[in-house]
Amino acid sequence: MKNPLPPVNGLPDNLPDLTEQHVETEAVVQGKFITLHTDRIRLPDGTFAHREYVRHPGAVVIAAFIDDDTLVFEHQYRYAMGRHFIELPAGKIDDGEAPLATAKRELQEETGYISDEWQFAVTLNPTIGYANEHIDLYIAKKVAFVGHRRDIGEFLEVFTLSMDDAVARIGRGEITDTKTAFSILWLDKFYRR
Amino acid sequence: MKNPLPPVNGLPDNLPDLTEQHVETEAVVQGKFITLHTDRIRLPDGTFAHREYVRHPGAVVIAAFIDDDTLVFEHQYRYAMGRHFIELPAGKIDDGEAPLATAKRELQEETGYISDEWQFAVTLNPTIGYANEHIDLYIAKKVAFVGHRRDIGEFLEVFTLSMDDAVARIGRGEITDTKTAFSILWLDKFYRR
Repeated sequence: MKNPLPPVNGLPDNLPDLTEQHVETEAVVQGKFITLHTDRIRLPDGTFAHREYVRHPGAVVIAAFIDDDTLVFEHQYRYAMGRHFIELPAGKIDDGEAPLATAKRELQEETGYISDEWQFAVTLNPTIGYANEHIDLYIAKKVAFVGHRRDIGEFLEVFTLSMDDAVARIGRGEITDTKTAFSILWLDKFYRR
Repeated sequence: MKNPLPPVNGLPDNLPDLTEQHVETEAVVQGKFITLHTDRIRLPDGTFAHREYVRHPGAVVIAAFIDDDTLVFEHQYRYAMGRHFIELPAGKIDDGEAPLATAKRELQEETGYISDEWQFAVTLNPTIGYANEHIDLYIAKKVAFVGHRRDIGEFLEVFTLSMDDAVARIGRGEITDTKTAFSILWLDKFYRR
């Protein structure tokens, strides 16, 4: 099967509906923290296939500005990757929690900073191939340090970087955590401080 | 436990070693396509905890330039998310495959474009909390259309957008697939065309 023509220029007005329909849930495999769902699905041409995915409660990432140009970062070990990462503060949404409440809670718990000036920026979808995770980016302005309340067993180092320093580190491939790198470049491009 | 002082300004020279040591593999849970690994680990303070994660073979994402200003995109349904997404071409690295070979293969298979001018741009880590996935961004210049070779059951619509159009859609929250959104902003900031 060959595509007879090159693609159109620009997002077409009449995009095809490529929806995959749920037919049945075939398996739910329970790990210690993660659950895998396998569904039998109907493809757009009427044939069948399987999709396996992780259901995720969603998360937030926080751009906490100490001043117009300085952000709060964390240095953390990530076991799945086997190394330390530079990250913006972030955390999972608890059951029934409003995302903004998660953002306020995680920022103070992890870094010791609070703010009276919060705004939603944008949503990211980091793993559309096999998980339904979304991450909401929130901006906290004029943050004040009151002391952290980390969970037992939560180890991280908090420090600050200027926007320019963070952007340069992304350019050099030193900040590769995608929620962090995307958020910094998004703010650099679209957020007027 | 309270942090006595606010964080230092700038990435500290002497960051603490927060490495989590593997103690034993406790469980390997096999889904249809995804495998969950649960390890017992030793935290930096000598106490123990569990980490569960997905091992991922790695992937590539491709910025395929038709001309200096126009990129090839895909419109695809993502079952885990329950909706369509605008994405750059991307795909998983096959066992033993070099990432650049994956990039060339996936670009032609999915979109029908080939190129003689390839370069590596940057690596992303989209899911450091629970998977070891890395995504290598490759740039393909002056791509030529020769016809796609999609897998059976692979449904997608190919189209093109100018860099400015894509960047504006990221600003408006219309492109939220993070590998795509990050790649576009990275190219907009750091890639001199």
